[in-house]
Amino acid sequence: MKAIASFVLAAAAVTLAAPASAQFAKPEDAIKYRKSALTVMATHFGRVAAMANGRVPFDAKVAADNAAVAESMSKLPWAAFVDGSDKGDTKAKSEIWSDAAKFKDANEKMQGEMTKLAAAAKTGNLDSIKAAVGATGGSCKACHDAFRKE
Amino acid sequence: MKAIASFVLAAAAVTLAAPASAQFAKPEDAIKYRKSALTVMATHFGRVAAMANGRVPFDAKVAADNAAVAESMSKLPWAAFVDGSDKGDTKAKSEIWSDAAKFKDANEKMQGEMTKLAAAAKTGNLDSIKAAVGATGGSCKACHDAFRKE
Repeated sequence: MKAIASFVLAAAAVTLAAPASAQFAKPEDAIKYRKSALTVMATHFGRVAAMANGRVPFDAKVAADNAAVAESMSKLPWAAFVDGSDKGDTKAKSEIWSDAAKFKDANEKMQGEMTKLAAAAKTGNLDSIKAAVGATGGSCKACHDAFRKE
Repeated sequence: MKAIASFVLAAAAVTLAAPASAQFAKPEDAIKYRKSALTVMATHFGRVAAMANGRVPFDAKVAADNAAVAESMSKLPWAAFVDGSDKGDTKAKSEIWSDAAKFKDANEKMQGEMTKLAAAAKTGNLDSIKAAVGATGGSCKACHDAFRKE
């Protein structure tokens, strides 16, 4: 039980060192978290996009499952763009913080498109999925163009 | 529209190069994905654990929200332990593949505990959450001890 207790303690360490109001102990934890959430989202979105593009045979259930995960994931990264996490292993542009309202609009637009994609995928209509994949991809790109380096 | 189309194509690239049956084009994509999913899961579990340990003030809604995300995430990493992804930037032990049944048991045990934790968090009963955090942490540790290097 002692080993388990210290394991749980270690798992909680990221929060332990933080004030109660903060969700990440260190900027690098926030960076790692948001990149991870975006990686998972992109993987599942990519599977739906591959079907929309006809590169992978369309399977309605697989599309719906992956779109649902991508939609859930689309809600997570934004809370991790905390102050001070503009430096380090990140491509985040300073505009994320200096033009926070625009960044919020951009990521809310993407979340909205991802929700529409999940709804389209649930219907199983490939044409609707194609349209929603295009719109979602456009919202990803718009945010990257404005707020991601390179 | 052309820029958007190629963006969507790029997002789908991971799947494009893979046979229809495979979910990851390259072993390193699978490794990055599963580590990302585990990072997101650990972050949300850690927030619940911090409340269970009394290091952060208990907030029933925050606990329930974080436990729900951790539960969703607990389902994702396992499909990414694909053949050939035992090498590279990973701490995965070869036993994951040579003793696949035991690995499956271990990760299903964790998923089960995470589901119980999410249910406990939904009730808002801190004692139940504490017990479930302990059991979940124990299942994480058991799997790490058996299947993770270091």
